[in-house]
Amino acid sequence: MKVAIVGGTGYGAVELIRFLERHPNIKEIKIVSHSQAGKAFEEAYPHMTQIVSQHMSALSIEELANEVEGVFFATPSSVSYKYVPALVDKGVFCIDLSGDFRLADPEQYEQWYGTKTAAKVDLAKAVYGLSELYHQQIKATKLVANPGCYPTATLLALLPALEHKVIKETGIIIDGKTGVSGAGRSMSLAVHFSEMNENTRAYNVCQHKHIPEIERYLSDRTNKEIQINFTPHIIPMTRGLMATIYADLQELITAEEIEQLYRDYYQGHTFVRIRPIGQLPATKEVYGSNYCDIGLQVDRRTNKLIIVSVIDNLVKGAAGQAIQNMNILNGWDEQLGLNDVPIYP
Amino acid sequence: MKVAIVGGTGYGAVELIRFLERHPNIKEIKIVSHSQAGKAFEEAYPHMTQIVSQHMSALSIEELANEVEGVFFATPSSVSYKYVPALVDKGVFCIDLSGDFRLADPEQYEQWYGTKTAAKVDLAKAVYGLSELYHQQIKATKLVANPGCYPTATLLALLPALEHKVIKETGIIIDGKTGVSGAGRSMSLAVHFSEMNENTRAYNVCQHKHIPEIERYLSDRTNKEIQINFTPHIIPMTRGLMATIYADLQELITAEEIEQLYRDYYQGHTFVRIRPIGQLPATKEVYGSNYCDIGLQVDRRTNKLIIVSVIDNLVKGAAGQAIQNMNILNGWDEQLGLNDVPIYP
Amino acid sequence: MKVAIVGGTGYGAVELIRFLERHPNIKEIKIVSHSQAGKAFEEAYPHMTQIVSQHMSALSIEELANEVEGVFFATPSSVSYKYVPALVDKGVFCIDLSGDFRLADPEQYEQWYGTKTAAKVDLAKAVYGLSELYHQQIKATKLVANPGCYPTATLLALLPALEHKVIKETGIIIDGKTGVSGAGRSMSLAVHFSEMNENTRAYNVCQHKHIPEIERYLSDRTNKEIQINFTPHIIPMTRGLMATIYADLQELITAEEIEQLYRDYYQGHTFVRIRPIGQLPATKEVYGSNYCDIGLQVDRRTNKLIIVSVIDNLVKGAAGQAIQNMNILNGWDEQLGLNDVPIYP
Amino acid sequence: MKVAIVGGTGYGAVELIRFLERHPNIKEIKIVSHSQAGKAFEEAYPHMTQIVSQHMSALSIEELANEVEGVFFATPSSVSYKYVPALVDKGVFCIDLSGDFRLADPEQYEQWYGTKTAAKVDLAKAVYGLSELYHQQIKATKLVANPGCYPTATLLALLPALEHKVIKETGIIIDGKTGVSGAGRSMSLAVHFSEMNENTRAYNVCQHKHIPEIERYLSDRTNKEIQINFTPHIIPMTRGLMATIYADLQELITAEEIEQLYRDYYQGHTFVRIRPIGQLPATKEVYGSNYCDIGLQVDRRTNKLIIVSVIDNLVKGAAGQAIQNMNILNGWDEQLGLNDVPIYP
Repeated sequence: MKVAIVGGTGYGAVELIRFLERHPNIKEIKIVSHSQAGKAFEEAYPHMTQIVSQHMSALSIEELANEVEGVFFATPSSVSYKYVPALVDKGVFCIDLSGDFRLADPEQYEQWYGTKTAAKVDLAKAVYGLSELYHQQIKATKLVANPGCYPTATLLALLPALEHKVIKETGIIIDGKTGVSGAGRSMSLAVHFSEMNENTRAYNVCQHKHIPEIERYLSDRTNKEIQINFTPHIIPMTRGLMATIYADLQELITAEEIEQLYRDYYQGHTFVRIRPIGQLPATKEVYGSNYCDIGLQVDRRTNKLIIVSVIDNLVKGAAGQAIQNMNILNGWDEQLGLNDVPIYP
Repeated sequence: MKVAIVGGTGYGAVELIRFLERHPNIKEIKIVSHSQAGKAFEEAYPHMTQIVSQHMSALSIEELANEVEGVFFATPSSVSYKYVPALVDKGVFCIDLSGDFRLADPEQYEQWYGTKTAAKVDLAKAVYGLSELYHQQIKATKLVANPGCYPTATLLALLPALEHKVIKETGIIIDGKTGVSGAGRSMSLAVHFSEMNENTRAYNVCQHKHIPEIERYLSDRTNKEIQINFTPHIIPMTRGLMATIYADLQELITAEEIEQLYRDYYQGHTFVRIRPIGQLPATKEVYGSNYCDIGLQVDRRTNKLIIVSVIDNLVKGAAGQAIQNMNILNGWDEQLGLNDVPIYP
Repeated sequence: MKVAIVGGTGYGAVELIRFLERHPNIKEIKIVSHSQAGKAFEEAYPHMTQIVSQHMSALSIEELANEVEGVFFATPSSVSYKYVPALVDKGVFCIDLSGDFRLADPEQYEQWYGTKTAAKVDLAKAVYGLSELYHQQIKATKLVANPGCYPTATLLALLPALEHKVIKETGIIIDGKTGVSGAGRSMSLAVHFSEMNENTRAYNVCQHKHIPEIERYLSDRTNKEIQINFTPHIIPMTRGLMATIYADLQELITAEEIEQLYRDYYQGHTFVRIRPIGQLPATKEVYGSNYCDIGLQVDRRTNKLIIVSVIDNLVKGAAGQAIQNMNILNGWDEQLGLNDVPIYP
Repeated sequence: MKVAIVGGTGYGAVELIRFLERHPNIKEIKIVSHSQAGKAFEEAYPHMTQIVSQHMSALSIEELANEVEGVFFATPSSVSYKYVPALVDKGVFCIDLSGDFRLADPEQYEQWYGTKTAAKVDLAKAVYGLSELYHQQIKATKLVANPGCYPTATLLALLPALEHKVIKETGIIIDGKTGVSGAGRSMSLAVHFSEMNENTRAYNVCQHKHIPEIERYLSDRTNKEIQINFTPHIIPMTRGLMATIYADLQELITAEEIEQLYRDYYQGHTFVRIRPIGQLPATKEVYGSNYCDIGLQVDRRTNKLIIVSVIDNLVKGAAGQAIQNMNILNGWDEQLGLNDVPIYP
């Protein structure tokens, strides 16, 4: 199969290429970049020397529709929505790593993103690509809205407890910590080494675009209107994301029972690893891999459940889950090309 | 004045020496180390070459009482409590950077620390050295229990809002992030560079020794029994500590009013800097200095107050505040020897 | 095929397991650890949860000889030499990642390592596993002395120029820079995060064990007695190694001719990538992969050739090259199980 | 005294302000920024909240000449040369942290910098501000060309051995390693956190602007035409600079004699610390301070002297040395305002 990546010079794209290059069912990759069309890919990314040798192409929907069976969009906000519907109409599957198709309502999108997205009717065609939870729907679609990094770590961590009414729906606090790669390759003082090394800062407090996304799917799975408080922090590391989640326990339940409930919930899902009660995962323990590791702790003094969920923000939080969704959508084994062991140390 | 430091080879001690070396009222420092007595200090810390040239001494209470006017204890848990009462009896002021004198009850200490401390009657003699809040008491004592790093950042951030009933006393969540230096110089896998670089992990969840300390002084200042949930994380940086605090707003109050309330509360206290609403401090912005910077954000959607408080864990969180307390206790200007501008970048 | 790893809890071992777990020709791995026999492997390395589920075994040569076809030694100095000859005698292939079999002379070993190794006659049985240069010999042996990290980067960088007499044999300077993981998982102040973060230091200057190893094989390939000056530095990163090499140009030759000479020399060797003249590789450009990237620069002013050679010290500098040698020794494609694309960023 | 800083938003400027704010003889600082005139300084640098409260000014030579006694230029290349001569003519002392006045010949400047500088006659008026070596000349001038970071570390390390003919003048190799802050605050992929963290790269090999500067003053002090080979590397840390220098020993001299020679050479110069033979300084051991630490090692096998010289690139390599020069130029104690102990860890 031949696929294309649009947005070829960002970190999402280069991570997609890392997996696609070795994917047994992918024979060819076409790299499309608006800003750097014509440039050799290895010039932008010298680590790909002798691995990828092609010049990036300009974007043409016609050409893509003729040449490839699927397209990954690794573009900034408000780009993919202009091209995806036409491609899907022509039978090309699209996996969108941007946020354009993650919300149901274009007005809500505009409110949080500050820019436009597709019409409601087009948004309704997209399936949310949280692979473990929407497996059946992904299998049946041509258009996947690949989840954001924080929503992936948060939803996988919260849903078992919420759906089983172990915790209350109100008062949930999510304290996020992520490496700098999540901010992409474009330049700003916030990603300057001298500003971020030996430094930690909160950002986009109460205003992060992932808030409505998290709330939408928490509500969708529980049939309740759930509101969360989410505060992300940037940490002096390149990769890795942790969500530390605080929720009120609802009923008398032992820590061991909660652990078992989580194990049962993710039975058969290789990429979610539940840790024994009290063992909390560190971000490096999933580095470079598609795992989401979840640890649980009960605080009897304050009757809280504390959940620590970690992913590699560029893998399970972006490119890895996109590959997983491509596998599901095509009816392949979902682990195909994703068997990387975490790199440690 | 001549003072001594007991526990001379830890990071707390070396940071004390950094400030004491240039302190206008300190003429001599005696460095005491149990484990490395007889060794040249600059052998343990080559960056002190030609700055400190002395061999470390063994601990003798008699000698100390004869030679110095004050002693800083930068010792592990359950060491200082054996020596401090005798020194205070002899008229030597003691500033204890360990946790031995921070709690009121030796049984509670044993429960959280797992080791012993002084008798209740001795604990009662200590004044808690949170300089801004216990200024008068510090002035009148010979025994200061220097606060822990997390309690310093947390109490300074929470007390204005709690005392003025801006937030509810229940349901307070404190998500802590600190650099590796907080774990000291002794070796463990948790401080191994290859294990901690590009990594973030939660630790001591629900069991951290700073929990009873924070709760004691929150309760002391509000005359309420306050319980908090505190989850610390270790971050791949050397210095710096952030407490991100989540609390429920109690009344209709604007963000600007909260900011003003904080400014009024710390009027005249140079080392606490309140940021304009919406500007949240980063840890590096206090690097190497004695500042505690506090930022505030109101989340109207969930009716929460989010407070971000940052300190250098080794300065305002340890040695710097100890110097500040020495200044207050001796009736000197509290800023003496502490006028370092944060090092940035 | 079933293989064993002796020294199962070091970084070399865990990196071997990362590759062996996915190697198409390896069906089973036995993990042997002297110090932690009986312990679950994932307890030592939680990132291997659900990937490796075995308890580590004690070392028994008899058992190994019965159970496995090959053994990797990832042990400290002066361990493997006691066991390797017996295993080889029983027909088990051994790949030794320690230095025990890299030098020809046990006295020289003792002089540089300070401990003992095998007898001269046993050392003579080992083939040096610099895969690209000793391919034929590796194919024909049961005992591979896997090269050190610095010798790998240095020899691959220097030999084309030396063998073709582009540079003089005298006066070669090698300035090495490596991440902290090269020092292993055992604890010392030198690997303490707070001591190494934001820090760079030279170490073992003029005394590093890799000096005689580099000189042995430079001499071996050129039939000259070559002496080098080698100064390693430790850099605040986990993985990655760079050798910056300075040598006097011997003849009038253009930079382009040198580049071509290097390209010809490594024709057909996938894992050595020669960069275009003037483009110098960065360590991260080979992160997690088995590549050695080499860049070249000519300084006409001083008539020097500057060679920059980078590897991932744990992959091409240790475990990856060991897998490559296993592949060659068994007559398999040398790239089997080693097709990882560098992880970037 | 009142002084001004031109180029107020770069790292050089903010570091100057850190020292000037506490300098006993400086009463007022005027911050001039072309690009950000009118903006509050603490908006650009929030760590200066409540320390510096002024709006940055536009550049006017007239105003400066009327208002201040001295001006520091912390500007990019080819800016200061346009303003310095006029200010000096009006009796204002100028300390230029850029390279504009470091070379003798405007053509050579243009060749290495690619842009223009002052006329030869104006360049001749500048004194090179390597404080320890040109003390008398600095005392007598109004125009100091503050040295580059690499030249500072290199010249202090090489000159004692060269002047005393301990080493040969030919074949000197300087391998430089520096943190990212040396590249300044302006944005480029080379300072992007995700590109530089866990990474090391050589840059500007054989073409670095500091080469002619180093050669000029090596030659000046020895009356020989000295050429060096200099290869800088960027290291994943913010501050710190190391020069590892390789030179051929010229005569039979013991390591101890060399150490003594260095100690004698820097007798009375507080800011240069010579380490005992075999103890090599790490960059963090001078962090935040004005020290240059020098370590020495003799390699008998290859008859080389290896010198390791470390500075904080923003202090002794820029702002600290500029303050030192201001002190000397004004006839003050050269340590005034510079007594910071290195921050460790």
